[in-house]
Amino acid sequence: MAKYVYFFGEGKAEGNGGMKDVLGGKGAGLAEMTNAALPVPPGFTISTETCREYYRAGNRVPAEVETQMQQALKQLQRASGQQLGDAANPLLVSVRSGAKFSMPGMMDTILNLGLNDKTVEGLARRTQNPRFAYDSYRRLIQMFGSVVLEIPKSEFEKVFDGKKHQRKVRLDTDLTAADLQQVIAGYKKVVKQHSKHDFPQDALEQLTMARDAVFRSWFNDRAHHYRRMNNISDDLGTAVNVQAMVFGNLGDTSGTGVGFTRNPATGDKVFYGEFLMNAQGEDVVAGIRTPLPIAELHKVMPEVFVQLRDITTRLEQHYRDMQDFEFTIQEGRLYMLQTRNGKRTGRAALRVATDMVHEGLIKKEEALFRVDANQVYELLFPRFDPKKLNALEPLATGLPASPGAAVGQVVFTAEQAVAWTHANKGPVLLVRAETTPEDIRGMEVAAGILTSRGGMTSHAAVVTRGMGKCCVAGASAITVDEHAKMLRAGGQRFGEGDWISIDGSTGAIYAGQVPTIPADPNDPLLKSFMAWAEPYRKLGVRANADVPRDARAARSFGAEGIGLCRTEHMFFGEGKIEHMRAMILAEGEKQRRAALKKLLPLQRKDFAGIFDAMDGFPVTIRTLDPPLHEFLPPREELMLDLERLRAASGPAKRKATTAIRAKYADYAITDAAGLEKLLGRVQELHEVNPMLGLRGCRLGILYPEITEMQVRAIFEAAVQVAKKGKTVKPEIMIPLVATPKEFALQAAIVHQVAAEVLGEAKLKISYMVGTMIELPRAALVAGEIAKEAQFFSFGTNDLTQTTFGFSRDDIGKILPVYLAQGVLKQDPFASIDQTGVGQLVQMATASGRASRADLKVGICGEHGGDPASVGFFHRTGLNYVSCSPYRVLTARLAAAQAGAAEASGGEAGRTA
Amino acid sequence: MAKYVYFFGEGKAEGNGGMKDVLGGKGAGLAEMTNAALPVPPGFTISTETCREYYRAGNRVPAEVETQMQQALKQLQRASGQQLGDAANPLLVSVRSGAKFSMPGMMDTILNLGLNDKTVEGLARRTQNPRFAYDSYRRLIQMFGSVVLEIPKSEFEKVFDGKKHQRKVRLDTDLTAADLQQVIAGYKKVVKQHSKHDFPQDALEQLTMARDAVFRSWFNDRAHHYRRMNNISDDLGTAVNVQAMVFGNLGDTSGTGVGFTRNPATGDKVFYGEFLMNAQGEDVVAGIRTPLPIAELHKVMPEVFVQLRDITTRLEQHYRDMQDFEFTIQEGRLYMLQTRNGKRTGRAALRVATDMVHEGLIKKEEALFRVDANQVYELLFPRFDPKKLNALEPLATGLPASPGAAVGQVVFTAEQAVAWTHANKGPVLLVRAETTPEDIRGMEVAAGILTSRGGMTSHAAVVTRGMGKCCVAGASAITVDEHAKMLRAGGQRFGEGDWISIDGSTGAIYAGQVPTIPADPNDPLLKSFMAWAEPYRKLGVRANADVPRDARAARSFGAEGIGLCRTEHMFFGEGKIEHMRAMILAEGEKQRRAALKKLLPLQRKDFAGIFDAMDGFPVTIRTLDPPLHEFLPPREELMLDLERLRAASGPAKRKATTAIRAKYADYAITDAAGLEKLLGRVQELHEVNPMLGLRGCRLGILYPEITEMQVRAIFEAAVQVAKKGKTVKPEIMIPLVATPKEFALQAAIVHQVAAEVLGEAKLKISYMVGTMIELPRAALVAGEIAKEAQFFSFGTNDLTQTTFGFSRDDIGKILPVYLAQGVLKQDPFASIDQTGVGQLVQMATASGRASRADLKVGICGEHGGDPASVGFFHRTGLNYVSCSPYRVLTARLAAAQAGAAEASGGEAGRTA
Repeated sequence: MAKYVYFFGEGKAEGNGGMKDVLGGKGAGLAEMTNAALPVPPGFTISTETCREYYRAGNRVPAEVETQMQQALKQLQRASGQQLGDAANPLLVSVRSGAKFSMPGMMDTILNLGLNDKTVEGLARRTQNPRFAYDSYRRLIQMFGSVVLEIPKSEFEKVFDGKKHQRKVRLDTDLTAADLQQVIAGYKKVVKQHSKHDFPQDALEQLTMARDAVFRSWFNDRAHHYRRMNNISDDLGTAVNVQAMVFGNLGDTSGTGVGFTRNPATGDKVFYGEFLMNAQGEDVVAGIRTPLPIAELHKVMPEVFVQLRDITTRLEQHYRDMQDFEFTIQEGRLYMLQTRNGKRTGRAALRVATDMVHEGLIKKEEALFRVDANQVYELLFPRFDPKKLNALEPLATGLPASPGAAVGQVVFTAEQAVAWTHANKGPVLLVRAETTPEDIRGMEVAAGILTSRGGMTSHAAVVTRGMGKCCVAGASAITVDEHAKMLRAGGQRFGEGDWISIDGSTGAIYAGQVPTIPADPNDPLLKSFMAWAEPYRKLGVRANADVPRDARAARSFGAEGIGLCRTEHMFFGEGKIEHMRAMILAEGEKQRRAALKKLLPLQRKDFAGIFDAMDGFPVTIRTLDPPLHEFLPPREELMLDLERLRAASGPAKRKATTAIRAKYADYAITDAAGLEKLLGRVQELHEVNPMLGLRGCRLGILYPEITEMQVRAIFEAAVQVAKKGKTVKPEIMIPLVATPKEFALQAAIVHQVAAEVLGEAKLKISYMVGTMIELPRAALVAGEIAKEAQFFSFGTNDLTQTTFGFSRDDIGKILPVYLAQGVLKQDPFASIDQTGVGQLVQMATASGRASRADLKVGICGEHGGDPASVGFFHRTGLNYVSCSPYRVLTARLAAAQAGAAEASGGEAGRTA
Repeated sequence: MAKYVYFFGEGKAEGNGGMKDVLGGKGAGLAEMTNAALPVPPGFTISTETCREYYRAGNRVPAEVETQMQQALKQLQRASGQQLGDAANPLLVSVRSGAKFSMPGMMDTILNLGLNDKTVEGLARRTQNPRFAYDSYRRLIQMFGSVVLEIPKSEFEKVFDGKKHQRKVRLDTDLTAADLQQVIAGYKKVVKQHSKHDFPQDALEQLTMARDAVFRSWFNDRAHHYRRMNNISDDLGTAVNVQAMVFGNLGDTSGTGVGFTRNPATGDKVFYGEFLMNAQGEDVVAGIRTPLPIAELHKVMPEVFVQLRDITTRLEQHYRDMQDFEFTIQEGRLYMLQTRNGKRTGRAALRVATDMVHEGLIKKEEALFRVDANQVYELLFPRFDPKKLNALEPLATGLPASPGAAVGQVVFTAEQAVAWTHANKGPVLLVRAETTPEDIRGMEVAAGILTSRGGMTSHAAVVTRGMGKCCVAGASAITVDEHAKMLRAGGQRFGEGDWISIDGSTGAIYAGQVPTIPADPNDPLLKSFMAWAEPYRKLGVRANADVPRDARAARSFGAEGIGLCRTEHMFFGEGKIEHMRAMILAEGEKQRRAALKKLLPLQRKDFAGIFDAMDGFPVTIRTLDPPLHEFLPPREELMLDLERLRAASGPAKRKATTAIRAKYADYAITDAAGLEKLLGRVQELHEVNPMLGLRGCRLGILYPEITEMQVRAIFEAAVQVAKKGKTVKPEIMIPLVATPKEFALQAAIVHQVAAEVLGEAKLKISYMVGTMIELPRAALVAGEIAKEAQFFSFGTNDLTQTTFGFSRDDIGKILPVYLAQGVLKQDPFASIDQTGVGQLVQMATASGRASRADLKVGICGEHGGDPASVGFFHRTGLNYVSCSPYRVLTARLAAAQAGAAEASGGEAGRTA
């Protein structure tokens, strides 16, 4: 018979720490701590399989679960010496979710379960604290009402606030036991009114209902969204932990706290955390009262502090990783409620991993996996320019909850953050009194988060650290009026859209836009860590860079070449775009060639700069790729301007003409006829689906003179730099090839022009000509293409677009629904679709190498900087990935992890 | 050592008729006729391999070719008893192209080669006809000058016309020998002036230069274009035939002619052709003089006529097919110059194939291949309504050169025909005095061709028959003034853009637009032929039909079901589009459902009509596919209208408002605010790449209520028709699926709604749910999709778009260049790209069937009506193809040919 329920308590658990799949993270942790003889309140865990059965059976648990739960309950009653529903000595339990992977605050929890009109009296008598008993009971009704019965929280708040108002008190604690009894009566009315039933007095019924509500909460919106963001499968399900309650709010010898064995923001080896006396756990996490630093506990209860330090140190040794723990002190006695590997910032991850190697706790190859490759990226976030900061006075200072520097426009709601971001209004800073799980979408898009309440372990702090996003929390000196949309700080007022800057490393808040400077890639900690990683890396890492500045940055991060230099970006500069436009507007080849002649020296200079920066490393240069209309004004704008100019008469006409002349000065347009001609050309170039239109090598085949000019510029630059004694390795890459012949036509131009230029210069420079594989057809005929092409570089952005039939520009409306419905597990433009697009990558690599054994194969799409994708490319046997310069370290670490995983027989970055 | 040159003459040839690959069609025919002891002037053929070597070596023939040619020339001189360049008895030769596949008039020919200032005198003496000799010499210089030296023809015409003008004569033949000597002097000056060299007097030099010019002509524009149109590979190359000249212009006992063993327009078994006495072959083909029917030859030279009949009958028996032959009579003696299988119209192909089976000449399975499957389509062309014709007097009557009825607007140049077609000005008729190979692009786009000169074998007649396009040729009663753009016919004048109608079956020309009626699919000849074909066909043939009328037409052509019913077309009708728009403009699901409710009965009615028409045959219905903005006004137009309305003031404002109200009456828009709201929604729906946007199943997943409505309409209609006692087989098809989950989500809706509707009706109707495979990813994960989907239908239009990254709407600019440069062998939207797109079709079929053995697999893109593609789908093992109703017969025949080819171990429709 299947085992669904696992008891823990009395120094022994049916489960253990290795059973996260079955018990969830929390349940496994409780079992493990119980087995380690730590002071854990007894309880039982209902397995994740039960959750899956619950959904399979149409929201019902198997009958067997009820039976096993009854047995476990009996054990629990024995262990606690209390009976559920017993009027004299009632057992109270908490009911909490706990999935395999931590999803903080995403699912539901119910505390104080087991209280009813009778047991509350028993509790009052036993604790000799009627106020505590009634408060616990009203909390139960409120949580049960909102979580299990889905009654809006505000309904309960109305009753509670009404009572406070009536009693003219400010603090919750100012309400007396009698007041709370009246609140309870009010709450019960709310329950009856909304659910058409009385609040259940039967404790077992409460337990059953609460258990099922936790199962249901697995699919609530927040949880679903969180899993999507964190690539957690919907199929896992959550376990339910039922545990005897201990109370941190039984008076001044009770308390509760959370902590970390090391600082989760910096990684420093200090005991770190917060506590509140006479409080329940939710008071700490919710950030409603600002808690005390954990060091203060030493003063308040020295023995308990020493016991806690001892226990948590043992836990860290046991788990061989930094622990994030929760505890409660009930009337002087310490209970451990939870422990798990703590979330941490990138810097902290690096520090902890490095320190633990030095402490002999873990090995170097283990340390590699203690830093998420994406977190290395976070280390490269800009920080405020210290010189500028010297001259600035912070408006206020909050807690440095998640490091980095953020500059943005103030918004007061998550919805606003999302709306402004979608409208491309520039970066926003989400400013809230405190954040809740409902705010998660807004937090995701914001440049940073600022809260006026809550501590280092408040929702805002925990979530932003997970995101690697800058956060200043609990800045109590500021006031946030979300209703009036007003932030008051340092005597100034900031409305929606006003700019502020926050420093997540110091907690400082500044008015306006403070200049930032990039991070230091030569950080010694980072350097030593990367040095451990390097031997495991097989995959080369290059960077995508279009200008010498980016090329130099890429080198500084350890890029081994340029994998993609997009030549079109070079045309947008001052003094260039006008020649580009003249080329596009040319009537016939002759005019076009004249314009190209003017572009030649400008391109040559750009290429020379890049060759110079990449001395000795290969530089892959892609010939012109985008459709030509991208260089001209938008069609709709021209149509409207022409209409306006024509419709105007008299003085309005003169004014309109002046405006048009100014606006189109680059095109030397003076009247409607000129505007019409320009519009005519734009109309000619207009395409219904530009992504599938006249671009890439198609341009070079229709206008070979463009390719000729670009290749000449490349080789003239190569000659220039080579003559200075530097090594130059040009790799010319032909984009958007679908057939071997397209490649052959363009490659012929490359070879011819190269021979001309090198012949004139009497110089030998070895170079390669290759192609992007970015269309399904190219992948399908890769074997033929490789007969001519010396290298492949997968353009996985375009390949994703055509393989899925998704336009990157238009997927915005579809993607959220597809993620929510589980059609897609992740954005295929962020992490490569290994099943579909990846299949083409594998096929093309295999057939390309079958034609040409030494074919060099790389990838230069966005996926080159995504750790999971890098793992896939490693397994596919590519030679290198190329990513944006700031992603180079991430790619290097991900590649090393893939290599190390392979060496140990596992793998990294595999997705469903 | 490779053999490059093949001699034929003196009753024996080194080659034979089976060597078309090596000798080209003409060379093989000459060898075969020589071997059959037919009177063929001796000569030699330089192989197609020489042409390929010529291009490989950078336009040079291998030295060995020169040696072998010298030897063959010696043999030729011996056989003819004449010496090249001999002043007394000069050997004159023709130099002609001849590729494996006939390309009439596309490449170059030079006649009378061997004449120079000395040999012309010898020829004059030997023939005792100085005028003939000088005329031959001036023709040589003219042809050599234009073909080999690339001097514009007009330069020679100027000299010639100048002489006629000076001599005040009308006909070429009115010029005397002395006049022609002056023309020759003038021609030589033209040559010197343009080529900087004298006209070569050395006969061997003439021969070498002419040979190379023919090789070069393989890649001239016309030939290239012709190959593209006819799917002939650029790699084949042409052979060169050098043959002793015989002269049809040596006086009244000489003549020349061309003919067919049967009528190439109707297939009737009559000796058919034309001849001209005292003329050279080019005079017949060029259509400059109107020749006499071949029956007249019986009167002029009875013995020659009998000999010709005898020879051509033997040729037909020998080749077992209708022959197209050329002959020359030199001073009473008959020479056969060429024979080949004759091109014919669809009707003639059918008739000849059927008759030859009845005559016992060929077997039924051979007959199948004598009709090009595309030609069956031609038989379905409309003809003029005979009732209407009774009341009409033709303006004039020409030769019925290529059957069918054409109605169009008069244009006088090929360029104009192309321009009007590109500008979508409606059908055009190309009206010319005579056509030349330069006109081919214009002929391709015209609805029909009308010429005032030339016979049944003129350029216009031959080319249009090949194209299956209506042509009336040699209508000498009309005058065509191409310069003044004026057609005079029957006393009326027609300028550019005026409508006329021509009947290619009778030769009649009518003013205006004569009504046409569709062809008779019950033609008994066609019926019996198709009955022979049917047993060989394995592939099912269905039709794409959206309305009951098309469904009935499809049935009449033998369609075995509907393979694609596009539901969106149903929304465009009166009384429907407004509800569709209301659905799109709805604010929220509730409003959308209300609009959908109104669409439901309308869709149900449409589906009922189709089920009714297809009684018993399956009907595949695709759920809504196109992006919603297709149902709303264009964005740019709304922007301009809004701008106009806003800019106007005073009375203009009122006028503008009235105009807007009228234009947007469907949307009940009365002012700028309303217009702005509509524009707002259109902007929301706007997509950068609509082809890759929110369409197909993506719509159904974002708005499940749309799918629900459509499925309800389908099943309610099915119930309606089933209750009338008819069999209904609905197959619901989900478009644009990329992942198994998308299919599963939509299929769940289908099953749920079907269960509801059938449950209410207490009826069992079996149905299937399947998907289109039209995205590369769907093909890549087809094995997974087939676990849920009961059938696949390849949407090869979209699959071609995404596999190539080509937008069908935008390929227009790219395709001509790609075809010209040989990047593509054919338009991949017309005939499936077997290498790339076809690979995905094969993969998906195999992996789909691996998951579900009985998976039904079809294809419903345009390729379903293309014979080569049908052959491919047969070989891939698909269950059926679906094409437009008028293509059903073509698809059926192509499928039968594929089946017959497979049965005999060959294959049909394979392309490179």
